[in-house]
Amino acid sequence: MTPDVLQEALDAAVSAGESARGTTSPNPPVGCALVDDHGTVLATGATSPVGGPHAEINALRHAGERARGATAVVTLEPCNHTGRTGPCSHALVRAGITRVIYLTADPFKPAAGGADYLRDHGVEVDYRATRVAALQPWLRSVANERPSVTLKFASTLDGFTAAVDGTSQWVTGADARAFVHEDRARRDAIVVGTGTAIADNPSLTARRPDGTLFASQPRRVVVGKRDLPEGNLTRLGFEQYASPEEALTALWHAGARDVLIEGGATLAVGFLELGVIDAVQAYVAPALLGQGRGVLDRAIASTIAEAKRFHTTSVRQLGEDVLIEMEKY
Amino acid sequence: MTPDVLQEALDAAVSAGESARGTTSPNPPVGCALVDDHGTVLATGATSPVGGPHAEINALRHAGERARGATAVVTLEPCNHTGRTGPCSHALVRAGITRVIYLTADPFKPAAGGADYLRDHGVEVDYRATRVAALQPWLRSVANERPSVTLKFASTLDGFTAAVDGTSQWVTGADARAFVHEDRARRDAIVVGTGTAIADNPSLTARRPDGTLFASQPRRVVVGKRDLPEGNLTRLGFEQYASPEEALTALWHAGARDVLIEGGATLAVGFLELGVIDAVQAYVAPALLGQGRGVLDRAIASTIAEAKRFHTTSVRQLGEDVLIEMEKY
Ligand SMILES: NC(=O)c1ccc[n+]([C@@H]2O[C@H](COP(=O)([O-])OP(=O)(O)OC[C@H]3O[C@@H](n4cnc5c(N)ncnc54)[C@H](OP(=O)(O)O)[C@@H]3O)[C@@H](O)[C@H]2O)c1
Ligand SMILES: NC(=O)c1ccc[n+]([C@@H]2O[C@H](COP(=O)([O-])OP(=O)(O)OC[C@H]3O[C@@H](n4cnc5c(N)ncnc54)[C@H](OP(=O)(O)O)[C@@H]3O)[C@@H](O)[C@H]2O)c1
Repeated sequence: MTPDVLQEALDAAVSAGESARGTTSPNPPVGCALVDDHGTVLATGATSPVGGPHAEINALRHAGERARGATAVVTLEPCNHTGRTGPCSHALVRAGITRVIYLTADPFKPAAGGADYLRDHGVEVDYRATRVAALQPWLRSVANERPSVTLKFASTLDGFTAAVDGTSQWVTGADARAFVHEDRARRDAIVVGTGTAIADNPSLTARRPDGTLFASQPRRVVVGKRDLPEGNLTRLGFEQYASPEEALTALWHAGARDVLIEGGATLAVGFLELGVIDAVQAYVAPALLGQGRGVLDRAIASTIAEAKRFHTTSVRQLGEDVLIEMEKY
Repeated sequence: MTPDVLQEALDAAVSAGESARGTTSPNPPVGCALVDDHGTVLATGATSPVGGPHAEINALRHAGERARGATAVVTLEPCNHTGRTGPCSHALVRAGITRVIYLTADPFKPAAGGADYLRDHGVEVDYRATRVAALQPWLRSVANERPSVTLKFASTLDGFTAAVDGTSQWVTGADARAFVHEDRARRDAIVVGTGTAIADNPSLTARRPDGTLFASQPRRVVVGKRDLPEGNLTRLGFEQYASPEEALTALWHAGARDVLIEGGATLAVGFLELGVIDAVQAYVAPALLGQGRGVLDRAIASTIAEAKRFHTTSVRQLGEDVLIEMEKY
C-alpha cells in the first residue's frame, strides 16, 4: 500500500468512529476499516450502542469472506477481554486478518493486550500513534474516572453573552447555531445551571434547523437546588443534581463520558474552580456591545499571569462567527 | 495563457502590491507583473514612495526591451493623468504592451480613463474585478476622504485586555506580537489615547522580535489634551491631536490613508461613536480571567439587536492565539 492509499484507509476508520459519537458511551466511539492489498476499502464499522458489537466486529460482518487476508485499520487497539461482547482480537484472527494498524493504545487495563494477542497469532501489528479527535473525551474520562467536561459559550468579540438589557438571542448566526445542535447530538449530556434553566426555559435537545430532532439525544441535566417551574425541561424530562461534583459522579456511573456545560456564567465558574474543565468551545460573534453579561460571573484570576489558559486545537469560521476549540494543557 | 498560468501572474502582481504597503501613501500600494505569452513572469513592480514611479513604470524598467508584446497585470487600473509622474497608460503603450489585465477600477476621478486610453491605442484591456486586500484601506480612504481606520485590540476569550490588577503583558503570545509589529509596518499611523500613552509608555514602533526596527515606520499619534511625561514617545517624536476628528483630518491632509487605533478602551469608544471604524482586528488569547478591563469602556448598545456588527474577512491562528479580521458592512 502506498502512503496515499494507506491515508485513505486511516481516514475511513477515523470517519467511521466520528459517526458514532454520542451513541456509544460508556464505550468509546471507535472506527474500523478493512482494506485489501490494493488499498480498496472493503468495509467499515463503528462501535454499536452499549451491549452491541464493537467496531471491528461490525466491519468484519460487512466484509464477510472478503476479510480473509485483509488489513484492519482501527482507531483504538482491539480489545482482548470478554465483556458484553467477545474479544475483538480473537475475532480478527478467526476472520483471517493478516495485518492490524491501530492509532491509539488502549488505556483501559482489562481490555488491553489486544496487540500482543494478535502478534502471538501471527498477525502483523502496527501502532501509528495518532490523535483521534472522536476518542479524546473518552480517553480523558477513563484517565480521570469522571466524564470529560467541555465548557461551551457564545459571546461577542468583547466577551458578552447578553446585552445590558439581558437579551442574548441571537449573539451568533444560523451557521453557528446549527453547528451547536450537531455538536449536542455527539455528546452524552448537556448541563446547565438552575439560573439558565429558569431564565431561558431551554429544551436542551439536538435539533436540525427545521426543528426536527436528531436520532441521538444527550441527557438533559440541571445543576442547583432550586425547583424548575413547568416548562420545556419538566415536559421533556431531565435530571437534577445539587452541585457539579454530584452531577459528574452520577453521570459517570450512568455511563456518560462526554458532557457539555452550556451555561450560565455562575455554573461555569463552579466547574472552572473545581478544575474539571477539559475543553472549551468559544463561539465568537464579530459584534461589539461595550457592556453586558460576561462569560464568567466573577474573577477567576487577578493577574494576566494567573489567567486560566488553554491550548488551541481548532479554529473555524461558521458563517460570520468563529468557533475556537481548546483543551486543557 | 491557461487559467493556472494566469493565476500565477495575478498572484505575482498582488504580492508585489502587498510588499509596498505602508510606504506609498497618499498613493495606493499597487502591484504590476509583466508576463509573456507562455505566462513567464518577466518582471514585477510596486508603487514607489510618493514622488517616485508607479508600479507599471517600475515593472517596465525592470523588463526593458522584453516588455514589447507582453501582458501587464496590474492590481489597479493604470492612471491616465500627469501628476508628479507621467500617465502610466501612455508608458504602457510606448513600451509595446499588447494586453492589460487590471483587478480594481480606479475610483479617483482625475486618474481614471486609463483603460479607455489603452483601448483607444490598440491594447486589449481586461477588467477582472477582484478584492485586492492591500488596496482596501486606500479605496475606503478615497471614498470617505479620510484615512481608513482599523481598531485593533488583544483580549482574553472572555473579552478582557487586562486583569483586575491592571496587568496586560502578555495577553497574547510571541507569534501574535510578531504579527502585530509586521502589521504596524504596513500602516501609515498608529494612534493611541493619552490614557494609554501615559499608562504604558509605548514606543509605537514596528520592531522585529530581536528589537530592530523595520525599514518602514508608521507615524506615532496620540489623541487627547493631556501632556505626556518624558518617555519613549517624547524621545522618538509624536503628533498629538485633541480629538479623533482632528486627528483624522490632520492625518488625511498629511497623506495618511491607513491608520490603526491601538487603544485604549476610552478612545476606541470615541472612534466607534464617530462611526469611522472601517475594520477591526481582534487578537484573541485562549485564556479566561472572569473579570478585568474590557475592550470598550462603556456600552455602545443596550440590546443584542443593536450590537455593532462587522463582517468577518479572515480568521487565522497565530501560535495559541486567534486573529479575527473584520470589516464594516
Ligand atoms: N449566551 C450564552 O452562551 C448563555 C448560555 C447560558 C446562559 N446564559 C444566560 O445566563 C443566565 C443564567 O446564568 P446564571 O449565572 O444566573 O445561572 P447559572 O449559571 O445557569 O446557574 C447558577 C446556579 O447553578 C447552581 N450551582 C450549583 N452548584 C454550583 C456551583 N458549584 N457553582 C455555581 N453554581 C452552582 C446554583 O443553583 P441553586 O441556586 O439553584 O442551588 C446556581 O445558582 C441566563 O439569563 C441565560 O440567558 C447565556
Ligand atoms: N490590551 C490592549 O489591547 C490594550 C491596548 C491599549 C491600551 N490598553 C490599556 O488601556 C489603558 C488606557 O486606556 P484608557 O481607556 O484609560 O485611555 P485611552 O483610551 O488610551 O485614552 C483616553 C483619552 O483619549 C482622549 N480622547 C480624545 N478624544 C476622545 C474621544 N472622542 N473619546 C475618547 N477619548 C478621547 C482623552 O484624552 P484627554 O483626557 O487627555 O483629553 C481620553 O482621556 C492603559 O492602562 C493600557 O494599558 C490595553
